[in-house]
Amino acid sequence: MEAEIGLIGLGTMGSNLALNIAEKGHDIAVFNRTTSKTGAFFEAAGELRSNIIPCTSLEEFVQAIRPPRPIILMINAGQPVDDQIEALKPLLSHDDIVIDAGNANFRDTMRRNGVLDGTGLNFIGMGVSGGEVGARHGPSIMVGGAEASYKRIEQVLLDISAQYEGQACCAWLGENGAGHFVKTIHNGIEYADMQMIAEIYGIMRDGLGMAPKDTAPVFAGWNEGRLNSYLIEITAAVLDTEDAETGKPIVDIILDRAGQKGTGRWSAIEAQQLGIPATGIEAAVAARSLSALKDEREAAEKAYGSLGEALKRDAALLEDLELALLAGKIAAYAQGFAVMSGASADYNWNLPLPEIARIWRAGCIIRSQFLSTIADAFEGADKETNLLVVPAFVEMMREAQAGLRRVVARAAAAGLPVPALSSALSYFDMYRQGRGTANLIQGQRDYFGAHSFERIDKPGAFHGPWGISAI
Amino acid sequence: MEAEIGLIGLGTMGSNLALNIAEKGHDIAVFNRTTSKTGAFFEAAGELRSNIIPCTSLEEFVQAIRPPRPIILMINAGQPVDDQIEALKPLLSHDDIVIDAGNANFRDTMRRNGVLDGTGLNFIGMGVSGGEVGARHGPSIMVGGAEASYKRIEQVLLDISAQYEGQACCAWLGENGAGHFVKTIHNGIEYADMQMIAEIYGIMRDGLGMAPKDTAPVFAGWNEGRLNSYLIEITAAVLDTEDAETGKPIVDIILDRAGQKGTGRWSAIEAQQLGIPATGIEAAVAARSLSALKDEREAAEKAYGSLGEALKRDAALLEDLELALLAGKIAAYAQGFAVMSGASADYNWNLPLPEIARIWRAGCIIRSQFLSTIADAFEGADKETNLLVVPAFVEMMREAQAGLRRVVARAAAAGLPVPALSSALSYFDMYRQGRGTANLIQGQRDYFGAHSFERIDKPGAFHGPWGISAI
Repeated sequence: MEAEIGLIGLGTMGSNLALNIAEKGHDIAVFNRTTSKTGAFFEAAGELRSNIIPCTSLEEFVQAIRPPRPIILMINAGQPVDDQIEALKPLLSHDDIVIDAGNANFRDTMRRNGVLDGTGLNFIGMGVSGGEVGARHGPSIMVGGAEASYKRIEQVLLDISAQYEGQACCAWLGENGAGHFVKTIHNGIEYADMQMIAEIYGIMRDGLGMAPKDTAPVFAGWNEGRLNSYLIEITAAVLDTEDAETGKPIVDIILDRAGQKGTGRWSAIEAQQLGIPATGIEAAVAARSLSALKDEREAAEKAYGSLGEALKRDAALLEDLELALLAGKIAAYAQGFAVMSGASADYNWNLPLPEIARIWRAGCIIRSQFLSTIADAFEGADKETNLLVVPAFVEMMREAQAGLRRVVARAAAAGLPVPALSSALSYFDMYRQGRGTANLIQGQRDYFGAHSFERIDKPGAFHGPWGISAI
Repeated sequence: MEAEIGLIGLGTMGSNLALNIAEKGHDIAVFNRTTSKTGAFFEAAGELRSNIIPCTSLEEFVQAIRPPRPIILMINAGQPVDDQIEALKPLLSHDDIVIDAGNANFRDTMRRNGVLDGTGLNFIGMGVSGGEVGARHGPSIMVGGAEASYKRIEQVLLDISAQYEGQACCAWLGENGAGHFVKTIHNGIEYADMQMIAEIYGIMRDGLGMAPKDTAPVFAGWNEGRLNSYLIEITAAVLDTEDAETGKPIVDIILDRAGQKGTGRWSAIEAQQLGIPATGIEAAVAARSLSALKDEREAAEKAYGSLGEALKRDAALLEDLELALLAGKIAAYAQGFAVMSGASADYNWNLPLPEIARIWRAGCIIRSQFLSTIADAFEGADKETNLLVVPAFVEMMREAQAGLRRVVARAAAAGLPVPALSSALSYFDMYRQGRGTANLIQGQRDYFGAHSFERIDKPGAFHGPWGISAI
């Protein structure tokens, strides 16, 4: 048997992806640096073993794959990827394709692409979302690199990816770093989504005094409506889960200190580099960083004590919370897609925005019905159009913004932190303001730094009659 | 005559700095690539000419300075600085000091420091704030580099810097990039300050229907109180200025599209790299970016029309606006100093936080009384202490937060954008929350990605009984 494809790295993600590939009828060679893992993986593969070639050396592994060889790396991002490529290089032949399926920073992907360019080897940077379950049963796959290389592995990827109403959630998105960039923004949006859900949960818990058991059905209910999404679904599940040890709701047992692996931060930094607002992602990253400062927060709570007021629970407020989450989501996705649109122009990727929305509809963490609406909205729309002014979203936002407005106002008054939701409201209110307040800022800048300003009544750069002189 | 110091680059900032140096009795050699500028500068220098040596070639310039030579570069940041250093190198002698006084990115300063290290030449990265007037009559000077090099130019710098109650606003802050880093964060805080002022102005203009002439006295009044600062002072002046051409208030003539030169963005990016929340700066940078999208904003205004409601003007609201600005300022400065504290640890700079507050009290754009309070607060306090829990600020914030809360709530309801002010409130409310909502986020992350979570009742990493399995 000669394998159609190879995979290096049998951690949970790699193992699951390999089983997924084997299950879809593609013969796969696998290799892991710690060879005992390879054996254990093969043992556990059951009837899929007939499609798997376990290899104990890199040489054996490369020989087991039919040239030109597609080789998937599912190993830790960073230096290990560079090391693995270096180790592979002498063993590979012209036209082989190295596919980095890890959580790479797209700038590394662009660098690696440049390094392999002209060596006869091809490089693909591939974002894979969906966690362990996704890898095993169908992830969302975002591919960057030469289109010709993609075409050669397309069938395998279409077979293993998630399906949404018969459409594979996998696409080639552009040259070099496009796939990993889109995956990064996917994760950034995921940060914003999760933070807004946490803020709504906080209002329920601390403002309305609701027990986890009482909040779960609210989220479950929302999951039947316009908020229908994987994250809302699992929020209900998490809130409804009991700790096996204490019998208490598990969220009451979990420490309020969130981890982060860097993709949220990368998203925020890239948005800053591009000069495109991504305040929802920034708020979410900041919230995670603040969550880590548990000791400081406890000290601050002692210093300030209680400052807010309790909210009155009423049906209207719960409805407003749903609308707030919807409006916040629209603003966060508008920002995320605006960042991709900006990057697409900056890096000449020609990112297909409707296609990105489509391949996020299943398999990945932010999968939702909502993304179908976004795909439709961008279909035929100008790539530079902000989601906020696409008709379908104008209609939704006109309704939902009122709820967001009331929730932010009440949370502010009650001392409940809503950083991502209020960033969404500010973004919206600033974006829909034809005449903003930057005129004052330009006046100040000209006053203290002679930076000049534009006028509303004629073109050109002007200075004010400030009556000050530097000399 | 032999010059004590040299300066290259006779733009407005360079010319003013040179005149400042000459005026303080230090003989200075000057050079500009376009030599006609040098002549014009010398002509205009009047009686200060006796302290100035105008040079028409780089060789002549270097020879005019007494070794070991301190040479200030006040030229465009970026490649020009590298080029200038390369051009100087063959002409310089052991122990000469190249001083980059431009708006360099501190990472470039660190790189240049590394390049010159071991060549026998010394490098100083020096942040100079205060605009043209500051450069001429006393800027705030933030110095980074070898302390021994600083000591050799200290007297000149102390003489030309701004004075606050007899104390020079100039200090050596640490090795290599420390000076330019602190200058960057200074500018980031300036962004936040200016944005919060613009938001308050927006509430007055659009919420309360106040004419510029009516808002100016309010700011002027605040300038007599705890908000006393250069930026509030010039806000009143700008709002009170008439356009010479139309006779209208000049802010009504200035286009609401703000420029930015990068330091705000750099601050935001560095804060992200360090993992320290700087949401006030981020909100301010985003606001400037949004202000630039004038056409999009006008289109969005058409799509949404009016959504908010007018505010009722009352004396209490104006008082609240003052408190909101104060509270917002506290949060923004808390973030800025936290970022410096984080960078100090990360880069081994040992940044003197009280000293930084002190040298910002005069000369620079964010100069204010408020910085005296910060200097006192940090004096003796642990470097890692967040400003929000320093007793003097706890007291101020306990009072001011109520105003900020009411302003954010009313602005949210009224459709008036307050991105920086609401980011400040969210930061505060999140920071003073001992038990946050990241427990839900950790639950979600473990549910979909098996990232594990900590428990409140025992140490270790745990997984939830989610009843799902990847395989």
